[in-house]
Amino acid sequence: MHPMIHAARDRIRVAYDPDLVRTFGHYMIDQLGEYFRQAEQCAGPVLPWIEPQTNVRDAAALLHTPLGGDASPGVLRDRFAELVEQSLDRSHRLHDPRYIGHQVAVPSPIAGLFDALTAITNQAMAIYEMGPWATAAECALVDQLGTQIGWTPGDFSGLATHGGSLANLTALLTARNVAVDGCWEAGVGQTTQPPVILVHGDAHYSVTRAAGVLGLGTRQVLRVGLDEQRRMDPARLADRLGQLRRAGRPVIAVVACACSTPIGAFDPLPEIADICQRFHVWLHVDAAHGGSACLSTQYGHLVRGLDLADSLIWDAHKMLFVPALCAFVFLRDRAHRFETFRQDAPYLFDPTAPGLAEYDSGMRNLECTKRAAAFGLWGLWSMFGRSLFADMVDVTFSMGRVLYEKLVEADDFVPLHQPQCNIVVFRHMPGALRDAPPDRVGQFQLELRRRLVESSEFYIVSTKLNGVGALRTTVMNPLTTADHLDQLLDALRRHGKQLLA
Amino acid sequence: MHPMIHAARDRIRVAYDPDLVRTFGHYMIDQLGEYFRQAEQCAGPVLPWIEPQTNVRDAAALLHTPLGGDASPGVLRDRFAELVEQSLDRSHRLHDPRYIGHQVAVPSPIAGLFDALTAITNQAMAIYEMGPWATAAECALVDQLGTQIGWTPGDFSGLATHGGSLANLTALLTARNVAVDGCWEAGVGQTTQPPVILVHGDAHYSVTRAAGVLGLGTRQVLRVGLDEQRRMDPARLADRLGQLRRAGRPVIAVVACACSTPIGAFDPLPEIADICQRFHVWLHVDAAHGGSACLSTQYGHLVRGLDLADSLIWDAHKMLFVPALCAFVFLRDRAHRFETFRQDAPYLFDPTAPGLAEYDSGMRNLECTKRAAAFGLWGLWSMFGRSLFADMVDVTFSMGRVLYEKLVEADDFVPLHQPQCNIVVFRHMPGALRDAPPDRVGQFQLELRRRLVESSEFYIVSTKLNGVGALRTTVMNPLTTADHLDQLLDALRRHGKQLLA
Repeated sequence: MHPMIHAARDRIRVAYDPDLVRTFGHYMIDQLGEYFRQAEQCAGPVLPWIEPQTNVRDAAALLHTPLGGDASPGVLRDRFAELVEQSLDRSHRLHDPRYIGHQVAVPSPIAGLFDALTAITNQAMAIYEMGPWATAAECALVDQLGTQIGWTPGDFSGLATHGGSLANLTALLTARNVAVDGCWEAGVGQTTQPPVILVHGDAHYSVTRAAGVLGLGTRQVLRVGLDEQRRMDPARLADRLGQLRRAGRPVIAVVACACSTPIGAFDPLPEIADICQRFHVWLHVDAAHGGSACLSTQYGHLVRGLDLADSLIWDAHKMLFVPALCAFVFLRDRAHRFETFRQDAPYLFDPTAPGLAEYDSGMRNLECTKRAAAFGLWGLWSMFGRSLFADMVDVTFSMGRVLYEKLVEADDFVPLHQPQCNIVVFRHMPGALRDAPPDRVGQFQLELRRRLVESSEFYIVSTKLNGVGALRTTVMNPLTTADHLDQLLDALRRHGKQLLA
Repeated sequence: MHPMIHAARDRIRVAYDPDLVRTFGHYMIDQLGEYFRQAEQCAGPVLPWIEPQTNVRDAAALLHTPLGGDASPGVLRDRFAELVEQSLDRSHRLHDPRYIGHQVAVPSPIAGLFDALTAITNQAMAIYEMGPWATAAECALVDQLGTQIGWTPGDFSGLATHGGSLANLTALLTARNVAVDGCWEAGVGQTTQPPVILVHGDAHYSVTRAAGVLGLGTRQVLRVGLDEQRRMDPARLADRLGQLRRAGRPVIAVVACACSTPIGAFDPLPEIADICQRFHVWLHVDAAHGGSACLSTQYGHLVRGLDLADSLIWDAHKMLFVPALCAFVFLRDRAHRFETFRQDAPYLFDPTAPGLAEYDSGMRNLECTKRAAAFGLWGLWSMFGRSLFADMVDVTFSMGRVLYEKLVEADDFVPLHQPQCNIVVFRHMPGALRDAPPDRVGQFQLELRRRLVESSEFYIVSTKLNGVGALRTTVMNPLTTADHLDQLLDALRRHGKQLLA
């Protein structure tokens, strides 16, 4: 057996060769430098449109033709180069200022480098020991962000998780366990009436999904009416809670938005929090996108009252400009931190060092073993501090307003709301569409958007408002200027004309 | 407003500067090259032991002293260097062959570089468009891994998610929704008797946790008795299912292990699958650690019958040697792929291109927006192919046997099982402990382990078997040799002597 092990180990060594790490790494960094230079100068496609079947076929072809075990360093280097070049050529270039699409960060590459440092060395962190420095960085960052929300370190609890959907799930799981006594052990089918979650009328689909996952049932998600700016209407919330109280229906949580996904509406949190306190109901705020506003002097007022939430989520891979996935869940009251799960894993949690459990993220995270999701943000913040993020919010939110003003001025575009942040929803309405029925108008927006995206000139998305299709943009790239927005409207006009022809 | 935006944008540019990416990136790669060289030569600590309070204090100090907005490139570079050096100095060095601890991969740094490529460019993938190539790579890889399991592409479904806990949750959520009609919409409190999950007696805590999350209740997790090798006993499973059937109790799933966490026992899957089919019960196999055995000629027999599972999980960040987190969930029957969630998100899923939904991972993933979790594996496999992974399994599993034989030969060590893979649980039993009561013996193992780990000489973990503490090792580093294992036993003897003194 031993000679075979030795031979196999010798074959494996190449995959761990420090010299190869240097050769490959330096090559990759040069390619990335060039990629960012080109993308930031709009030199090339935004999204290089390739049908999924074609991309899958080509990715499979590379997977099926690996090198043999005895490849020379030069051959290995050529193969690595081929894979990197293919990958960059086919990537969606978010760093192109003409990327004005989903609420996914255009991350600072420096944050990406810090991310890479913990990924390549694999600082995983179910327990403190496995990623001691990555754990410390997350703890320090949670304190920093919580302070920005308006809380005092030591009072609250927070953690990083893999995305806003998991963050909402983690918070609502905590709220469920607090609201429905014994349901962790016995299941949720105990109360005589199914407990409900009251949500913003435009709440993100991950909230309804959480109700499905948690065994509450998506039908138990009740939507609260919105005001004319599509914000949760406090009066209607109070009415609804009153009705539920009289009917004896348990309420797990109220879910407010800061801001909503479709048009970026920020709820009046102080009023909502006041009502929740009056009814003794848990207030959860989905601040995935808008939480970062608290870092800005100019826009901080949008999230006034965020500190009154019992739980909230805040995605760093949206408006803190780090790579996906890094979302934070905060619990205002630290005493709730172990309500999310109640577990027993003797090989993880060591009674000879009980104090470590406070630092063992597996006790509080859905993931158990977790990658160092917050490390990119720790590095970026340690380089540049809060002011960078305040600038990012100010620039991107202000550009939302700039786009809105252009839409108002143009007679062939219709903005569908006054933007509160960098999310702007609108329609292109060339003359030929003026008297068209809503269905036709909506269908035109969706087809126009697809045509624009497949042209690789810009990347924007679509949505439906009141059931009718619309164009949706989020100025996520701080390098997007007013000129780029003018070009966007021109490109939409040009493609619209072709579509109508 | 505009002059302020321009000024802020100019301040932001430094965080996106392609030249800085090159300077910082090349510096980091050189530091990583040196880190791997030292770690692989055992030159330095394994886990540099620092108390969490100290690490958190120091991470916070760096966070609180960022550079000003007008720092020169040289100052920026010095700061970056300081942060990278601190981070590497305080990292847990899994690449040191004396890391013989948790089932967390010692990843090939090449996989880490591929991971970094998609992280730095942020190829997130709720929908195909946002990460077209990363999505394609995952699809190709899912087909490749499914083929290794024994399935035919097109018949099954699979996806990557952030860790084994989420993978188990995703699979059991699917099983719940299939077993309990209408529970997604109505909640799980519908059946007259609470549905149960039948699990391996040593099942990972994430399975019980999933029952808590899914609203089923942790008490509804029933453990099936084990045979003398701590494998699930098919006869007891059949008995248990018969009892439940007669009692009219719904069964959501049977959860078998390939392998179990505590000692790495592989269940007899063909017999278990046969019983599940007989009772029409969903079979889920937690193959997080052992799934990779199917790639090895020498050890493939351990997972015979894996293809009979209705669902299974397989962690690439364990025995496929890529950084955390990358776990796969497989469903044998592709028809179940949309049973996990049933959602409506008009701004995501575009009716003008309905075929894309098959490639929009947000439809099937807990995360919604997802990082390119499988990209490191796609790159590593495209470089070296299946044979690398077969070698990795062969070497590490064989080294488990080598350690076992050393323990048998030594008269002051007691192995607690015959290892089937690279997980080996044992106790150190110096003469002074021969007649000690079990509590004292167990406590000695835990204290010995803590002393060893804090010495930074080796990293191993602990567990309890039948309530008594024991030492637990997993040979995760393919560069760990028989000599390192001899040194481990000597170090345990040395620290044990000090502890007893």
